Amino acid sequence: MPYEWIANGTITTATGFLASGVSCGIKPAGQLDLALVASQRPCAAAGAFTTNRFPAAPVLYSRALLAKNPARVWAVLINSGCANACTGEEGLADARETATLAAQALGCPPDGVLVLSTGVIGVRLPMEKLRAGIPLAAQALAPDGGAAAARAIMTTDTQPKACAVRTEIAGQPVTVAGMAKGAGMIHPNLATLLSVIATDASATPAVLQTILRRAVERSFNAITIDGDTSTNDTLLLLANGGSGHPPVSDPQAPEATALAEAVEAVAIRLAQSIVRDGEGASHFVTITVRGALHDADARRAAMAVARSSLVKTAIYGGDPNWGRVLCAVGYSGAEVDPARTSLWFGDLALVAGGKPLDYDESQAAEVLRQPEVTITVDLGLGAGQATVWTCDLTHKYVDINAHYRT
Amino acid sequence: MPYEWIANGTITTATGFLASGVSCGIKPAGQLDLALVASQRPCAAAGAFTTNRFPAAPVLYSRALLAKNPARVWAVLINSGCANACTGEEGLADARETATLAAQALGCPPDGVLVLSTGVIGVRLPMEKLRAGIPLAAQALAPDGGAAAARAIMTTDTQPKACAVRTEIAGQPVTVAGMAKGAGMIHPNLATLLSVIATDASATPAVLQTILRRAVERSFNAITIDGDTSTNDTLLLLANGGSGHPPVSDPQAPEATALAEAVEAVAIRLAQSIVRDGEGASHFVTITVRGALHDADARRAAMAVARSSLVKTAIYGGDPNWGRVLCAVGYSGAEVDPARTSLWFGDLALVAGGKPLDYDESQAAEVLRQPEVTITVDLGLGAGQATVWTCDLTHKYVDINAHYRT
Repeated sequence: MPYEWIANGTITTATGFLASGVSCGIKPAGQLDLALVASQRPCAAAGAFTTNRFPAAPVLYSRALLAKNPARVWAVLINSGCANACTGEEGLADARETATLAAQALGCPPDGVLVLSTGVIGVRLPMEKLRAGIPLAAQALAPDGGAAAARAIMTTDTQPKACAVRTEIAGQPVTVAGMAKGAGMIHPNLATLLSVIATDASATPAVLQTILRRAVERSFNAITIDGDTSTNDTLLLLANGGSGHPPVSDPQAPEATALAEAVEAVAIRLAQSIVRDGEGASHFVTITVRGALHDADARRAAMAVARSSLVKTAIYGGDPNWGRVLCAVGYSGAEVDPARTSLWFGDLALVAGGKPLDYDESQAAEVLRQPEVTITVDLGLGAGQATVWTCDLTHKYVDINAHYRT
Repeated sequence: MPYEWIANGTITTATGFLASGVSCGIKPAGQLDLALVASQRPCAAAGAFTTNRFPAAPVLYSRALLAKNPARVWAVLINSGCANACTGEEGLADARETATLAAQALGCPPDGVLVLSTGVIGVRLPMEKLRAGIPLAAQALAPDGGAAAARAIMTTDTQPKACAVRTEIAGQPVTVAGMAKGAGMIHPNLATLLSVIATDASATPAVLQTILRRAVERSFNAITIDGDTSTNDTLLLLANGGSGHPPVSDPQAPEATALAEAVEAVAIRLAQSIVRDGEGASHFVTITVRGALHDADARRAAMAVARSSLVKTAIYGGDPNWGRVLCAVGYSGAEVDPARTSLWFGDLALVAGGKPLDYDESQAAEVLRQPEVTITVDLGLGAGQATVWTCDLTHKYVDINAHYRT
């Protein structure tokens, strides 16, 4: 194993990163709503942003900043409670002002701060509160502030999401640490949700971008909660070089591979933790499709099953209604031969070569009584495979989303 | 108006069609579960079938029969309670046997009967019950049997769905009548759900197919309840020529247009009635996107809004969270310029030219308190437009689908 997990890791487990989470009054009840992650050295950075055609102001701002200045990023400012999306020119000016205020408070160059927002769409940032809150967040920066920061970026999340791994690059110990938020409006499209991964490794922005793009495909782009791709989804990867090894500049080098594996492990863990905390979720569901013509087909089929409201409600209800799984595979667009298709719930075979098996219904129901459910489909056509993660669709999901703003 | 609605119309309102609905024991509680629609003269017929790659046995059977014999169809046999899908070769043999039994009972040629099934996937038809039930259904055929037939094809539907219009072709009064079922696993893809439209007009199979294909696009393919495309979706159009006008053989003729308009009216009414009866639905939602680059883009955007769990739960909760609507438009794949986009709930303008308006929140909430909600998006880019219909996502939807089989 090229990396190992660090117990209770947070974003500040990576050397040279400070963080804070404060309450500046965006959320009404005084919850933490403003997080700051700052590096003691400038970072090389990479980002993946939502493909939504209404990108939020902070997405526009941060994407442009990263395109111009990927090698000297000092900090990321994140607010919850307001997405600053669909807010036009004024929203973009607000995003720019918060970035500038954070840079002033940190004493770094004005283009050294990335900004992210999450919360209600269509409402402008309460700038008076942010003007007061940003200096407080800067003052609160601490080497053990990762837990507070992870908490400050939550919206409908019930749990903060953070983790860290240790690996070795060029003989030096390196930490890759991350945090994320997200429980609804989760469906892959390049990147989903908000997540920041920080490492004390040293790498060029180009190497980081390559690593990030691949990690996203196998992590955040392999989960869905409700099929909605948000306006604000952003994943950032910051590397401050604090571990002291020579910079990694060749994406093919073994050092790049070690870093990529560690980043991918953190990204998958964070993505899975988002699904585990999916709005109203009572089951964590792993869907694997194998035997597809190619990986893309397997992905398409697995994601159709993961998105199906009928599959998700059946899992919630403990009803092993496997026909809904094949139905979703059937409309996914993947190449299918019904007579070659096999299906398992957990280890229990339900369909083999297109034929329903005479399985024990109570055993199938028992599979669904577990909090973690695995569904496997073998299309019997080729070597393509994919695994995606989702959660069930519950009464509580409807509760949460029927009255999100009220 | 080229057609007029007939009060309490059912499929037997069309001249020369008989129907019945009986209970043969497929459903446990003795509900009606077997419908037969039979014509007193052979029909020209057209069909649209699911694009799901696991087409049910009755879909395979009826599609093949129509390809071979579209000009001499005598009847349609429909059972509820069992979809006969994912049942392999045996399921296909069962479908064939039911068609043959119905033809025997009716005294028509063996290839004169189409079969449709709806219900649980992955379970074989209880053939003993059907062997006993099919003759009963044939005996029960009556000129006023349309209401019983519409009831016998219901699954999670709470209301039977039937209607009829009268038009005139070549000076002769013509009736177009239909019935449908469907409340879940509803998402367009060529055809969705089960529906039979019968007319006493006279037309060639080719004209009927043209008419059907166009009507489907603006009716059954413009609705979604849960985004799932079923394995059994089938729409049939039967024309028995009972009204006595000369056969319509030119799809461009004014007679074809009159028939097409009547068929489309019936198809739209049936499709809307399915949405009104959507599983657990408490709101009927009309989504219109206009100003798109082209109609296909408008359709894509409208359907993304209609499918969004977040939009649907917000409507259920009476929360005018319009950001979710723009978010869905943004990930739909349609060409969008945020600065040109405008949005209305009912008549209330919420966004104009990309800017959130200072609207009255209580007025917006009032729009959502109505049982019928209209959402209009203007993309400000071109002349493309589309209207689709959907319902909200409620606690009751989860109730119904968590325990469908149990």
